[in-house]
Amino acid sequence: MIKVGIVGGTGYTGVELLRLLAQHPDAQVEVITSRSEAGVAVADMYPNLRGHYDLEFTVPDTDALAACDVVFFATPHGVAHSLAGDILARGCRVIDLSADFRIRDPELWAEWYGQPHGAPALLNDAVYGLPETQREQIKSARLIAVPGCYPTAVQLAALPLLEAGLIRPEIVADCKSGVSGAGRGAKVGSLLCETSESVMAYGASGHRHLPEISQELNRGAGKDVALTFVPHLMPMIRGIHATIYADLLEGQNVDLQTLYENCYKDEPFVDVMPAGSHPATRSVRGVNMCRISLHRPQNGNKVVVLSVIDNLVKGASGQAIQNMNIMFGLEENAGLNQVGLMP
Amino acid sequence: MIKVGIVGGTGYTGVELLRLLAQHPDAQVEVITSRSEAGVAVADMYPNLRGHYDLEFTVPDTDALAACDVVFFATPHGVAHSLAGDILARGCRVIDLSADFRIRDPELWAEWYGQPHGAPALLNDAVYGLPETQREQIKSARLIAVPGCYPTAVQLAALPLLEAGLIRPEIVADCKSGVSGAGRGAKVGSLLCETSESVMAYGASGHRHLPEISQELNRGAGKDVALTFVPHLMPMIRGIHATIYADLLEGQNVDLQTLYENCYKDEPFVDVMPAGSHPATRSVRGVNMCRISLHRPQNGNKVVVLSVIDNLVKGASGQAIQNMNIMFGLEENAGLNQVGLMP
Amino acid sequence: MIKVGIVGGTGYTGVELLRLLAQHPDAQVEVITSRSEAGVAVADMYPNLRGHYDLEFTVPDTDALAACDVVFFATPHGVAHSLAGDILARGCRVIDLSADFRIRDPELWAEWYGQPHGAPALLNDAVYGLPETQREQIKSARLIAVPGCYPTAVQLAALPLLEAGLIRPEIVADCKSGVSGAGRGAKVGSLLCETSESVMAYGASGHRHLPEISQELNRGAGKDVALTFVPHLMPMIRGIHATIYADLLEGQNVDLQTLYENCYKDEPFVDVMPAGSHPATRSVRGVNMCRISLHRPQNGNKVVVLSVIDNLVKGASGQAIQNMNIMFGLEENAGLNQVGLMP
Amino acid sequence: MIKVGIVGGTGYTGVELLRLLAQHPDAQVEVITSRSEAGVAVADMYPNLRGHYDLEFTVPDTDALAACDVVFFATPHGVAHSLAGDILARGCRVIDLSADFRIRDPELWAEWYGQPHGAPALLNDAVYGLPETQREQIKSARLIAVPGCYPTAVQLAALPLLEAGLIRPEIVADCKSGVSGAGRGAKVGSLLCETSESVMAYGASGHRHLPEISQELNRGAGKDVALTFVPHLMPMIRGIHATIYADLLEGQNVDLQTLYENCYKDEPFVDVMPAGSHPATRSVRGVNMCRISLHRPQNGNKVVVLSVIDNLVKGASGQAIQNMNIMFGLEENAGLNQVGLMP
Repeated sequence: MIKVGIVGGTGYTGVELLRLLAQHPDAQVEVITSRSEAGVAVADMYPNLRGHYDLEFTVPDTDALAACDVVFFATPHGVAHSLAGDILARGCRVIDLSADFRIRDPELWAEWYGQPHGAPALLNDAVYGLPETQREQIKSARLIAVPGCYPTAVQLAALPLLEAGLIRPEIVADCKSGVSGAGRGAKVGSLLCETSESVMAYGASGHRHLPEISQELNRGAGKDVALTFVPHLMPMIRGIHATIYADLLEGQNVDLQTLYENCYKDEPFVDVMPAGSHPATRSVRGVNMCRISLHRPQNGNKVVVLSVIDNLVKGASGQAIQNMNIMFGLEENAGLNQVGLMP
Repeated sequence: MIKVGIVGGTGYTGVELLRLLAQHPDAQVEVITSRSEAGVAVADMYPNLRGHYDLEFTVPDTDALAACDVVFFATPHGVAHSLAGDILARGCRVIDLSADFRIRDPELWAEWYGQPHGAPALLNDAVYGLPETQREQIKSARLIAVPGCYPTAVQLAALPLLEAGLIRPEIVADCKSGVSGAGRGAKVGSLLCETSESVMAYGASGHRHLPEISQELNRGAGKDVALTFVPHLMPMIRGIHATIYADLLEGQNVDLQTLYENCYKDEPFVDVMPAGSHPATRSVRGVNMCRISLHRPQNGNKVVVLSVIDNLVKGASGQAIQNMNIMFGLEENAGLNQVGLMP
Repeated sequence: MIKVGIVGGTGYTGVELLRLLAQHPDAQVEVITSRSEAGVAVADMYPNLRGHYDLEFTVPDTDALAACDVVFFATPHGVAHSLAGDILARGCRVIDLSADFRIRDPELWAEWYGQPHGAPALLNDAVYGLPETQREQIKSARLIAVPGCYPTAVQLAALPLLEAGLIRPEIVADCKSGVSGAGRGAKVGSLLCETSESVMAYGASGHRHLPEISQELNRGAGKDVALTFVPHLMPMIRGIHATIYADLLEGQNVDLQTLYENCYKDEPFVDVMPAGSHPATRSVRGVNMCRISLHRPQNGNKVVVLSVIDNLVKGASGQAIQNMNIMFGLEENAGLNQVGLMP
Repeated sequence: MIKVGIVGGTGYTGVELLRLLAQHPDAQVEVITSRSEAGVAVADMYPNLRGHYDLEFTVPDTDALAACDVVFFATPHGVAHSLAGDILARGCRVIDLSADFRIRDPELWAEWYGQPHGAPALLNDAVYGLPETQREQIKSARLIAVPGCYPTAVQLAALPLLEAGLIRPEIVADCKSGVSGAGRGAKVGSLLCETSESVMAYGASGHRHLPEISQELNRGAGKDVALTFVPHLMPMIRGIHATIYADLLEGQNVDLQTLYENCYKDEPFVDVMPAGSHPATRSVRGVNMCRISLHRPQNGNKVVVLSVIDNLVKGASGQAIQNMNIMFGLEENAGLNQVGLMP
């Protein structure tokens, strides 16, 4: 049984880790920390966990955390910078759901996050935890940077085209997210009365997931890819829908459907839908899955890739557990085999 | 492995049976019927099932169904009347999610459903499938009438008071339901544009769940209980919230919290919340659970019982599987141990 | 042109006053205050107001406010206690949308609001601003306490029965509200992810609107009325649905439909629906209207009254303007004749 | 007073015409037809209209319609083809909200709508009713083809760039619509349980609004514009958000903000937001307004234009009334000066 610690368990990715790990056959949560809620039973804060957990939130304690086999950070950026080093030094592995180790260049990180990078020395150990591209590195990793939600949806949609060299190195990623992507913080902009019955773009001139997506698209393409990324806020709780627009190079007339099906045929958590399909975010609600469809409108040279994930699962906590499974040599889908909640 | 057949698998209770049975360790769906969708793969109709089922819908065929160990009817009323007899006669058990066998008096059934009862001879074999009150009868039953969604929420909230003889035999049940209770039929009244951002009562002068609730409250109380039942439509997909109002008899000063905790202490799917709580329907989203809280406003003699279920799970498909587990001697929570999806 | 000041214009009742007054033929907003947003254009904060207002929020200033003909307080409780006296003393009228002057007994107010009453000397001047019961007093009032949203929906539904002496002096009011009733404050409990796709009761053991409703029902009945009031939070922005349960006295067999139609036949903002109807909150979205339906389930002695309002309009800002119209001798529906937004 | 007839008043654009015309100072609805609802009071079908209309639906009758000054068609495609000719021949003007006269080439229309064009002889008289581009022609028009909802949002966003010749003739229009765009028909795909808490694209390989948008973008640009148009269904009732992506030509370094502000400075119903803004669909809920923002991410050569409308108002019924106002020489904003409902 893998002993699991969670730092910062009161947010949405924290409670989602708890939900998923409650059903995991080979892992057990031993410690969950929260400064503000120390002493509170997790099931009192999250009644859906009643009957599944007896745990209480505790003040973060490095000894208790390091006694686990793996510690998940479900914290705002900056926290893992402070704590991950000590925990790693004591032989415990770390899976960080925050942005702290996603960007390989600490200067770039500092520029987008508005503060100096707190642990540049750990960057060499950090593996970017997208199993579909980094599975081998993940197996032996000690520190995982779990990809962001938008980056997961965009990469899984766009990388097959870029890796195959079929398109101009230019991507438009029009992305739509449910409100849970903004977290559980008490912000006016996340109120039901501000977000329900409305759609709006945000960060059109620059969003923190942009450098992360660019870094990974560039890596996949082997060259610089011009990226336009516009996120939009949707009036719903969960789900990300990425709509990718790219231009086929002249003379390319590959069967895109076959390309994607081959690319993902061995992936347990990427599902290429039949030609002509339109994936709905609800088809992945609550599950660790990315569904993708391909379109070429009017058979022109514009490719449209549609990709959906649950931002809290394949876009965060589920993907984190998928990484854990790979790191510990478990079945990759252990504890991740639920069916999406529909309707 | 229990072989399962499902009649009428295209509605919401049908796809919910499929979702839950995909995770059941001891049961496997062998046959699923739908006249209108015969030949269609269930995973094409319900993409959340992709990767979980290879089944196709088939035209109902008594031979194929009777070769199963148990057949679930997830059909409009009247269908089980027609087909259940043949299936039962061939030794297969039947769990009917429709209203066909819930009401013991065929004349009363005919009055509320506007057509003659189609199988009165089977009524003696039918067991009302609320495990919390009929567990022993369910163990040996061949034909189960799964309770309606409103009746489940109301009975679990009100029966402890009635059975203990603590209240005047009069109940007000103000109930709120998500739109999935109206099914997957293409009705104007169920459109998002007609139901979203709005609340309304319906059936205030009489709803088909009224005689079912009355029958069972009367049985529990051992006498007639005056029932006022007003259902309301909520702008959401899943969930029922029942708010029960009753009057304590003069001189009764029992500790209601203790009464309920004792009443349900061995029940795996009824959770009495701590005193002062208010259960939210989202705490039971997707799971087979009823959460209950007790209040006595201003310490008067009015008792307010709050009860929540997911209408598609504890109010339908989950409860049906709970019945199957009991009938076949399995662990009662086999396949029903998920954690509610929150947020 | 009536010169209007608004204190505390950044909340939902504030912006709703601005929306409605923009269309008012005889009133014009001259001053709108907000300490936190001083210097910000109202149309920058609320883009729906672009093109309708050039105003900026200003720091509250008694001189500027008292130069208006009437000042609306759209503030948390306690603020009007502090400021209303000075403004009234300078001859300006005050319409307070907060709870400060609704309760006639300052001790009772202090008990429910957890602080001493800040202006007991003004209570004698305060008129409870429900036009359907206090129209004459409103005409000459200098200080109006606009009723709460729940109290408005409950009183309009219940008072005809109580005034006619037809029922036992006991009311159950099961009320459902959209999330805007909780205001625009940044609270976790009002986030979309916490309130969407869920229903829950709150304050079942005691809510601040209880003493207000009791005070007014008692006044209407001419005696004490036992009140059970349970509010529920609905997953929507606007709307209140009150479901009232009462018991007809033995031997009373009045035609309730006629009673209500007569009671409200001259009221511009109460609409008694045809017998058998169920009013939906969306039918009053954005408008100053209360729609009511009557039911007697199974022709028994239980009366069920259904009543809907938009909590921000007839439950707050619209009713405030209705009071203004009456106070200044305008047509009562001036500026309040919109059609509900449906769908 | 302009006498108005409405053909097909039971759908969402029909009830929206009624809502807006109830507040119009110079127009009055005299006739409203519906075969299926003939004899029903419009206020019985749409309770929000109670107190505003005494009209009943009637069977379509050319004499009664032609006695009006103008007839609106709020019908499925094909109906105006059949009836508009007779009505026009008798001197009445026609404003068609359907797609019947939007496309100038009847062969192209037939191809996309799957049936022959029913009134090609009228096409020469038809004026495309986008006031921002066709105001002069509308003034003298007898037959107006009101633009579709998506085409309105896309054209107002993209035309200034195309008309100024600043971009490559290639547009990506990623559009998001509320469910009311699908109408009031009883379709499974429009149920709350199918559309709530989910986002999906549809018609990615070809949608009927594509040829209409292309026709008008080509007209504006004076040459062919490659258009990629992908609509998405949003979990909300009203609103369209168009996100337009285009590439500035090399060497173009125009101030886009100024370009748009100048382009629309005299338009009453197009609002260019301040630089850096992101318009929300809720800011135009219920009103005849298009709000637009401009972005150049990372100051590159990609232009992103954000545009929002209420699909039932500026995308349909409001725009139809705006056309009527122009045709009859009224103030263009007569009856269209409401404030958006927010929250």
